[in-house]
Amino acid sequence: MADYEIFGLGDVVLQSRATIRGAKLAFKTFGNLSPNKDNLIVYPTWYSGQHYDNEWLIGDGMALDPAKYFIVIPNMLGNGLSSSPSNTPPPYDKARFPNVTACDNVRLQHRLMTEHFGVTKIKLVTGWSMGGLQTFHWGALYPDMVERILPFCGSAKCSRHNFVFLEGVKAALTADDAWQNGWYDKPPTKGLRAMARVYAGWGFSQAFYREELDLKELGYSSLEDFLVAFWEGFFLPKDPNNLLTMLWTWQHGDISDNELYQGDFDKALGAIKAKAIVMPGQTDLYFPPEDSEYEVSKMPNAELRPMPSIWGHFAGGPGLNPSDVEFLDKALKELLAS
Amino acid sequence: MADYEIFGLGDVVLQSRATIRGAKLAFKTFGNLSPNKDNLIVYPTWYSGQHYDNEWLIGDGMALDPAKYFIVIPNMLGNGLSSSPSNTPPPYDKARFPNVTACDNVRLQHRLMTEHFGVTKIKLVTGWSMGGLQTFHWGALYPDMVERILPFCGSAKCSRHNFVFLEGVKAALTADDAWQNGWYDKPPTKGLRAMARVYAGWGFSQAFYREELDLKELGYSSLEDFLVAFWEGFFLPKDPNNLLTMLWTWQHGDISDNELYQGDFDKALGAIKAKAIVMPGQTDLYFPPEDSEYEVSKMPNAELRPMPSIWGHFAGGPGLNPSDVEFLDKALKELLAS
Repeated sequence: MADYEIFGLGDVVLQSRATIRGAKLAFKTFGNLSPNKDNLIVYPTWYSGQHYDNEWLIGDGMALDPAKYFIVIPNMLGNGLSSSPSNTPPPYDKARFPNVTACDNVRLQHRLMTEHFGVTKIKLVTGWSMGGLQTFHWGALYPDMVERILPFCGSAKCSRHNFVFLEGVKAALTADDAWQNGWYDKPPTKGLRAMARVYAGWGFSQAFYREELDLKELGYSSLEDFLVAFWEGFFLPKDPNNLLTMLWTWQHGDISDNELYQGDFDKALGAIKAKAIVMPGQTDLYFPPEDSEYEVSKMPNAELRPMPSIWGHFAGGPGLNPSDVEFLDKALKELLAS
Repeated sequence: MADYEIFGLGDVVLQSRATIRGAKLAFKTFGNLSPNKDNLIVYPTWYSGQHYDNEWLIGDGMALDPAKYFIVIPNMLGNGLSSSPSNTPPPYDKARFPNVTACDNVRLQHRLMTEHFGVTKIKLVTGWSMGGLQTFHWGALYPDMVERILPFCGSAKCSRHNFVFLEGVKAALTADDAWQNGWYDKPPTKGLRAMARVYAGWGFSQAFYREELDLKELGYSSLEDFLVAFWEGFFLPKDPNNLLTMLWTWQHGDISDNELYQGDFDKALGAIKAKAIVMPGQTDLYFPPEDSEYEVSKMPNAELRPMPSIWGHFAGGPGLNPSDVEFLDKALKELLAS
């Protein structure tokens, strides 16, 4: 029994003009939609994550409280549950799965919210990392519909440095001959492990490693144990084509790269009417606070509130550090109450 | 005609108890040793660099002025000129080349300075990155001999985060099947290119990429051009076993990992009598200023002087940014005058 539902999208034409035929959006809901349909929260997934990787932020007494809100977690295209290289039939399967943008993702999510749930207002959109990217897209693509956004450890556009970091991740994964340009029968495990080791230096901050929080807080027995058990263990089970699809989505994320804003990034930021708290991690190595600062300066109704944490990008998820979760939850409560 | 000399070291027993038989130390000198042998400057090389990659800091009117000083650039073991996997005859060739520590390197350099040049005092030791690591070793291993040190964008011990960054670099290089555990006939070019892309995100800061200094200052035609021409072009010609030897040296760098200090890092720092300016790069992602701050706090005669630069690790070399070179040169002049 799957713990999630599937919304059939039919034939979907993407920004690239490729078509995913019989496209699927997998989602999970928490709580109930109110009679006047005004309590919906959208909470998109992050790079390689699936809906269950988001659940740590939902609970009784938390900001995302299912007793009050109807919380929908849509799975990103490429994450293995929504339409992905790993679950799409030929001829668009595996290495032929088309490039998907964050804009594509959010437009399909919008169809779920309007066609399936019939809402006209969204109380809040929030998400971590690529979930933050989708959150910004919600604000820019549907400014009259989205009342509040709280993107955390994410950005409205992939920065050039972030792009380069991802080039390294991709190069490590695809250096393995077993990758075979995506036509592998057996997964390129050497490449997946290499990718994991590359990611390890980026995910947490210098101070995190200096303070040995991998050992003292996360309980690993050594640095090497952390690299193998946490990092390699994280990426090894994942499908490489799925990972590369989402990586492309990330690298090409830009709220203005569509016919509405024609590449005018400042205009797209300025169009976000939602009341916003933009929350970078103070020590995030690939979404540095300076990028968020710029975004907030161009948004009419936004506050910059960095997470004072040495957990790097992982200050934002997935719920590893209780004091970071508390900081985030408090801001979400404040925003929802406003 | 080689532009450098070779000092024959004979059979060298390393810290690991392996022996390099007929070991060689390649070096280049600038200027002349004064009659009372009191003007020698040691300027060790950096990861993958050779002596000619150090020459940008030497010149008429600069701090490292050959008219005043006798400047010796010793090539690090593993860099292809001194004893290395690529130039050592069987059976210690290629993948069998032994692990070499920074301590091994500096002890052999010390033999060059004492046995060959006959000096008893060193005016200054300075170096970038792994050259900085060797600089710290000079200070800790020969405290009565070394009068001044100026390590820039380096550290006295490889931090845990720096170690993890290098794990990613290593994993990318060795994910290529063509690597063949070091017994390649043809170089693993896919792995070398992957390593280069991984390195690219670390070498320069987020702000460097944000400000597009790859285009505006370094003159590349696009971000991809920078990744191919600068980064892949840098690593492709290098021998992978050499790179892995120096990477091991870097990862295991620690001025206290020897019989003198028995792993007591604070004691080793405290033993450095040299007048020191420790110069991290303000935006260096793998030698963050916080690590240098700690080192300086334990050194009796040291000043912390971060480079106010957005060039990341490359604030320190190899002479890419004129204002960084000026900042460094000024500090070297001041230190030499003291």
